[in-house]
Order: sequence, then C-alpha cells, then structure tokens
Amino acid sequence: MRGFAASEFAARTAKAQALMAEHDIAALLVTTETEVRYFTGYLTRFWESPTRPWYLVVPASGKPIAVIPSIGALLMGQTWIDDIRTWSSPDLEDDGISLLIDTLSEVAKNGCVAVPDGHETHIRMPQKDVQRLAQAVPLTSDHGIIRRLRMLKSEAEIAKVVEACQIAGRAFARVPEIASAGVPLDHIFRHFQMLCLEEGADWVPYLAGGAEQGGYTDVISPATDTPLLSGDVLMLDTGLVHDGYFCDFDRNWSVGTPSDAVKDAHVRLITATQAAADIAHPGKTAADLFHAMNDVLSDGAQGTDAGRLGHGLGMSLTEWPSLIPTDHTQLEAGMILTLEPGIAVGDKIIVHDENIVITQKGPVFLSPKSSMNMPII
Amino acid sequence: MRGFAASEFAARTAKAQALMAEHDIAALLVTTETEVRYFTGYLTRFWESPTRPWYLVVPASGKPIAVIPSIGALLMGQTWIDDIRTWSSPDLEDDGISLLIDTLSEVAKNGCVAVPDGHETHIRMPQKDVQRLAQAVPLTSDHGIIRRLRMLKSEAEIAKVVEACQIAGRAFARVPEIASAGVPLDHIFRHFQMLCLEEGADWVPYLAGGAEQGGYTDVISPATDTPLLSGDVLMLDTGLVHDGYFCDFDRNWSVGTPSDAVKDAHVRLITATQAAADIAHPGKTAADLFHAMNDVLSDGAQGTDAGRLGHGLGMSLTEWPSLIPTDHTQLEAGMILTLEPGIAVGDKIIVHDENIVITQKGPVFLSPKSSMNMPII
Repeated sequence: MRGFAASEFAARTAKAQALMAEHDIAALLVTTETEVRYFTGYLTRFWESPTRPWYLVVPASGKPIAVIPSIGALLMGQTWIDDIRTWSSPDLEDDGISLLIDTLSEVAKNGCVAVPDGHETHIRMPQKDVQRLAQAVPLTSDHGIIRRLRMLKSEAEIAKVVEACQIAGRAFARVPEIASAGVPLDHIFRHFQMLCLEEGADWVPYLAGGAEQGGYTDVISPATDTPLLSGDVLMLDTGLVHDGYFCDFDRNWSVGTPSDAVKDAHVRLITATQAAADIAHPGKTAADLFHAMNDVLSDGAQGTDAGRLGHGLGMSLTEWPSLIPTDHTQLEAGMILTLEPGIAVGDKIIVHDENIVITQKGPVFLSPKSSMNMPII
Repeated sequence: MRGFAASEFAARTAKAQALMAEHDIAALLVTTETEVRYFTGYLTRFWESPTRPWYLVVPASGKPIAVIPSIGALLMGQTWIDDIRTWSSPDLEDDGISLLIDTLSEVAKNGCVAVPDGHETHIRMPQKDVQRLAQAVPLTSDHGIIRRLRMLKSEAEIAKVVEACQIAGRAFARVPEIASAGVPLDHIFRHFQMLCLEEGADWVPYLAGGAEQGGYTDVISPATDTPLLSGDVLMLDTGLVHDGYFCDFDRNWSVGTPSDAVKDAHVRLITATQAAADIAHPGKTAADLFHAMNDVLSDGAQGTDAGRLGHGLGMSLTEWPSLIPTDHTQLEAGMILTLEPGIAVGDKIIVHDENIVITQKGPVFLSPKSSMNMPII
C-alpha cells in the first residue's frame, strides 16, 4: 500500500496535540517537507524548488490546516486535510505571509504559536517573513515535540523503511555486475543508482562513497572518474527512497584480495556493529550504543571524523538521535537507527553501516546483515 | 572539466564584496547548499542529511572562511578555501554556533553581518541559533546580493547547464523505449530516471509528471501505478544534475493519436514559447516574457494554477526571476530561464517547457526545441 490510512495522520496529530497541551501551545507551525508530510502525507518532489514557502498549522484540536501555494492545492486535496488555504505564489509583495498570519491569529487566538527551533531543524521561509510573523503572533519553541513524535515510528512507517532497505540490499548484491578493476568510480555511482531504481527505488536522493588503496579518505565526496584499481576498497553508501521513507546503509568491497589490515578492519567493524546490536534494547541509550561500538573500535584502533557512530532515520536520511557520548536519548520500540562504525586503516578509513529497528524484544536488522568477510570484486 | 577554476570563485567573491561595500556590509553569512557552493565549489550530496549546520563567511575582502563540521574538512580542503574552521558535529550543547560567532566577530569587528532574507531564501540553521547569533552580532539583510549574483551566469556555468539540457534531451528522445499503452506510470518514472543516468546525469533530484485522458490535472504529483491508456497525454518534467547544475524542462507525448483539442493546445504552447523567445533580449523584463506567452495562451484559452510561466534556473531547479506580471527584473546576458506556458484543455492541463539562455544577441535554446506536433507513443 502506498501512503497511509487517514487514521495514521489522525494519530500523529492527536499525539502532537497532547504534547502541545502540556506546553500550553495554541498552534504548531511547520514549514519543511518532512514536517508538512508527517501530518498530511503530502508527498511531492516539488520541494526541490526553493521558490515557494509552504505552511501547515496544527491547531490545539481538529485537523491541521494547510496554507500553501495554489499549485499544490489539488495534491493536498487528495490527503486527509480539509482546510486548504491558498495563494497564487510567487507573490513578490506578500508570498502567503498575511494569509499565514490571519490563519494563525484565528487558530491560536492570543495563545502561543510554536515552531521547531532545536537541533536538526530550520524554518523554511524567508527570514524577513519570520520577523514579520514574530511581530504578529507570540512565537515560541516547539519543545522538541516534532522530534519526539518522529523518533518513534509506527508499524506502517517501519514497513516502508523495511522495503527501502530490501531494495537497497538487492541493489548492493548486484554491484559485482557494474564494478570491477578498471571501471571509473563515476560510472559505478551512475550505474548503482540505476540498479537502485531497477530494484524498486522511487528515487535515489543520496549516494556517496569512495575507492582508494586499502580504504578511502572521505565518505561524502562525489565520484571522480578514477578507475578502480586492484587493492582499492570500494564503498557505496545510499539513501534511497521508497514511498517517502529512506534506508541509509553502505557496503564495502575489496578490489582483488584484501590486505590483512583491511580484512581485520572489516571484521572489527562488523564486530562493533554486532556489539551495539546486542545491547540495543529499550531502556539503553544512544550513548550506550556509541560506547558499545567505540569499545571495539578503540581497542588499539583510531576512529574517524564523522562525529558520531550512527543516527536515526526515516522520512529523512538522518534523524534524531545521534550515537554520541552526550546523547542520552533512551531507546524505545519503534526507533530506527543506523549503526555506523568507522575505523582508520593507516591513513585511510573504512566505514560500515547497518540499519536496525528497536522492538520490545530487542533489535531487528532491516539491512541484510553483512558477513565478517569483505566481499571481493 | 568538472568544477571551476579558482578564478571563477575569486570573481564571484569580488563581485559580492563590491556589492557588500555599497551596502556597508562587513561580512556576509550563508548557510544553504547552493549559497555555500556558489562561493566555494563545495559539492556533496551530504546536505541531504539535515543534522549538521554548515556556515560560510564572506569577509569584506579576502577569501571566504568556512565554519563547518569536521566531517566536511577534507572535501572543503580540496576547494580554493584556505581558512577552514571545524567542530565535531553533532554537538548537542553548541553545534558550531560559538565558533561561528567568534569568526563573525573577528571578521566583521562591529560591522553589520548580512544574511539572505528575501524571497526564495531561508536560513538553514536552528532558529534558536539564529536568535543567539542575532544577540551577538548586528544582523542585517543581504539586500538581494546573492540573488543578483546568481542570476547572471558565467560562461563556465552556462556550459554546465548546456550539458544538463543535452543529457535530458537524449533521455527524453528515448522515452518511446520505456513508455507505451499499458505501462504503469510509476514504471515510466523509474525507468526515465534510469535513462537520465545512462545518458550522463550525475543524479536526478527532480521528476514529476502525469498521464490522463487528454491532459493531466497536476504537474507535481508522484507517479501512481495506473497504466497508460490510449488517449492519455503523458508529461515528464525533469530537473537532472550535471556537475551541480540543473536543467528543468518537460516533454509531452500522446498515447495514440491526439485529439484535435490536444493537438491545438500543443501548437499553442509551442507558439507561446516561441513568442517569448522572440522578444527575450537584454532590456526586456521577466514580465514582458510573461505577457508574450499569456497573450498567446489567453486568446480564448484558460491558464493554469502554476502562478508563473517560467523562472530562472542554475544551481537550483528554480531561481530568480519569476515570469509573472509583477516581476520587472530586466533581462541581461547570462540569465538562464525556463519558458513554461500551461494551458487548460477541458478539465485538464498541458504544460510545455523549454530552457533558454539570454545572450547579447538574444536567446539561445538550451533544450532541444520541440516541434509543433506532439510526439505519439
């Protein structure tokens, strides 16, 4: 099934409203693709255009209200939202801001209007309009409500990430078809995206990777036209989308027989991943998972500059929490996480990545679990 | 050639600094992917992750300064930027904001720090940190400096859009290989993206379209699994990327012989596009192009809800200006525009789209110009 039943959005909205009541919030304003989609199911790649602002207002009770450019009215009309207020955008004088202010004034009366304002958030509207809004209504923090809601996935959401992971798993399994010594990395990037699509991805928003002798130096670079050489370690890391939900994991291949150092590093990465998975039960914390991996990695080994060893994922490639020593977020059933240890091998690094979901009984791997042996191409 | 010579970034920076001086701006702060890349060439798909903020400070003179998460240091170090200040992100207490404030205080002394704040902009950082920043340094508007700079493309930039358009043109020409009566639209979407990649796209951030009897109702929806039927008009609209630059145009196909109404609509759309191209010389305005098309379209015909009949493009799928009656931006050599008329056909719409660059001698089509006859599949 594509999308969700209306009951899914009603449940999300009700949960938001319960938390809003705790914080005396009269209306919640969201402006980004994932936030608007979370409450509506409004799924379009049109957000790629930075031109138009899009607004959704969650009142203290009742369904959210969409305040959007008229070009989106028809598609929004197919969601569970009834109250859709539009303007002809772009409007150089007033690009929906007075319609938004009117709507918020009506909904919130003189109560507080909350916006997400913490880590991993931004307000997707011109700063001039943020200021105009702040003068018209009392703005406040959302106290992390959206983060809290999105961190715990429903069964229906988990099913979508499961599907995304399976698609990526099938694409990764076919990498030997497109990658071998002599093939340029940019060719591999291009054809790996084709494999992801052929295996069922709706689109492929994220692909990074690297290939150098005995590891790589960077995991966020675009591909160059350098051909694979025997002795390279090839890494591909993809976030592909199925019905609006991401997977986010990578795989490594050795071009020819790996060195002992590469073999050992891979074993240690898999061991670290398993060490985190072994303790990934409700009640443990994001920091606990970090330490479980880091203890395996730091036993004589160097870490990387990634800044963390994993994170949440779902509607975004990366979401709360972060697997770092200072994130004490408690694990709960319904969290989907990457376990993403990295290790230095000489002056290179190797990074491994699996996706898990936390259940009452412990973790379930969503990505096809890698073996200790790095595959050879 | 991938990327740009350092002289390209030096020229962009010098132009920004000249405009900054006019407005008494001591430092310019940018936070979004395109803005950071514009001054640095820093190209990575890692921005897909919303977790980490990225900052670039353009001083009154000298090279820009990057204030970025350490995970990006190596890739940023390959650009022309020398001064790269990093922190280990995510940091839940201080995610780069104090490093940013220190940098701005050092660079701007007590002068004004400008941020883009007008139409089509947003600040990609948590609103809490925007407030902290506003308390620490005197924030002001960038007075549209970035918009002004990005609107006029260099020859090197134009060459990248030319290549993107040619890739899309080749992919569109191959659509008969993947689309015919009976094929579900989501299959066509998936395989069209594969064609774009096979023809040389680095990635395919945008694809929208539709297929219904005698037109379609929406141009921003994702695909359903409804199979093409004889009498449908299929539209595919792609923004694919070559070396960080977009094309943005669509094509229409009739499944079987088109009705007279569809034929006439297509002729009128091509005529409207040509009418705009005929006058697209330096000195004319965005509004002039709107009216040139609208005069052809409104002669007994209905428009659409798109809100505009074209726009700029380049590093983003859509950029300034907008082809609307109120946008009096003067055309200048170096602007790249879409001409994107839409027309109602009964209760459906058909939209046509070409990409042009304005030169001293007038417009040059970058997309392979469509014929009057809608192609049949």
